[in-house]
Amino acid sequence: MTYNLWYWDGIPGRGEFVRLALEAAGIPYKECAREPGATAQAVADDMQCDRKHPPFAPPYMEAGQLTLGQTANVLLYLGEKHGLAPASVSGRYWVNQLQLTIADMVAEAHDTHHPIAASDYYEDQREEAARRAENFRTERIPKFLSYFERVLYSAQGDWLAEGGRWSYADLSLFHLVDGLLYAFPKRMMSVSAQYPKVMALHGRVANLPELRDYFASGRRLPFGDGIFRHYPELDGK
Amino acid sequence: MTYNLWYWDGIPGRGEFVRLALEAAGIPYKECAREPGATAQAVADDMQCDRKHPPFAPPYMEAGQLTLGQTANVLLYLGEKHGLAPASVSGRYWVNQLQLTIADMVAEAHDTHHPIAASDYYEDQREEAARRAENFRTERIPKFLSYFERVLYSAQGDWLAEGGRWSYADLSLFHLVDGLLYAFPKRMMSVSAQYPKVMALHGRVANLPELRDYFASGRRLPFGDGIFRHYPELDGK
Repeated sequence: MTYNLWYWDGIPGRGEFVRLALEAAGIPYKECAREPGATAQAVADDMQCDRKHPPFAPPYMEAGQLTLGQTANVLLYLGEKHGLAPASVSGRYWVNQLQLTIADMVAEAHDTHHPIAASDYYEDQREEAARRAENFRTERIPKFLSYFERVLYSAQGDWLAEGGRWSYADLSLFHLVDGLLYAFPKRMMSVSAQYPKVMALHGRVANLPELRDYFASGRRLPFGDGIFRHYPELDGK
Repeated sequence: MTYNLWYWDGIPGRGEFVRLALEAAGIPYKECAREPGATAQAVADDMQCDRKHPPFAPPYMEAGQLTLGQTANVLLYLGEKHGLAPASVSGRYWVNQLQLTIADMVAEAHDTHHPIAASDYYEDQREEAARRAENFRTERIPKFLSYFERVLYSAQGDWLAEGGRWSYADLSLFHLVDGLLYAFPKRMMSVSAQYPKVMALHGRVANLPELRDYFASGRRLPFGDGIFRHYPELDGK
């Protein structure tokens, strides 16, 4: 079965977490908003379709009769269906738990540049963004990254969960760290030495043979004006 | 097995979503931070324990050897273990998807009074809160509630998912709406007529025989200074 992935074209966004899992596992999928002939309105139009289980927002994925929304939920499905997470009860919930913690940090990274309204321009909330970004840099980055460092330390292996191979949460943590390096290069430069295991995992996924073709394909979009944005005034040591 | 639920004492918080599921299903649990002799530091102390799978934040639940963190993940576990969600593949992911959408709105409701830093006082971010709350009232409340209204309309029954009985997502939607009614009474007064099915579900859970004892027990804490807060200056028609 070929899955249909729906996400706005032009930015990696939350769609990228699903994409990385599909690509690393070699699962066939169609990127619907980038198909020849797809309009800029393709996702918005599709969202209005009459569905038994409508998604609230992209990304969502059609798997035959199923439509699955919410990034962590799509990944839970892919993890169970394609063995991208441990099959044990303990490992399955653990990877889901990690994914949800990653999602929390992703949402906070977004709000550094849009602390007032996702629908308004950054330029209309610059002052608030400066305050929120400062808190994110000084409190939240250390809190989240030291947590993942602790998890990797306890795991005593290369990956977040047991089983000796990557899970979808490892791919997501890679993308999160990649986004932080893009958005907050100064801050990450000054703190990353405190999180050697997190940074090593980032490098390990960047060099994963399963992702080599994808990274070389040009299909992995630049961060641009998506969730992770680089505004020099929001960064700092 | 009696579960151990860990959450800060004094506010319902995200712990309440787990509590409602445990209470409505009659599942025995211990509220660890409210046990006789528990200190105000009980949760913070327990968080530092050496665990194979450490939680990032409360609520978390000990189920024998398992420790489960992240509200939606704890509920996924309870749903599967105790039949609090449909057993079908489709229904299971659907309820998880709805729970994650509810969680997104809960996080946004929190950020109306803490748009800059969760660790700072409201008084130190009042101006930003006023702007964020206005956006939440005018854009986000209608966007989320009209989504849930559409879901209930499609469901053609009393509950969000199939199967003819409540799932844990119904209990969570009740608590979310309850929190909105507390925090934004003026706004909810002026828009609730547009969401008759959401409001009917709220009333249905409020009168659920399975929750009668809990609601009468006094153990359901008032919203107070938790996720949902009532600051009159953040409310408006």
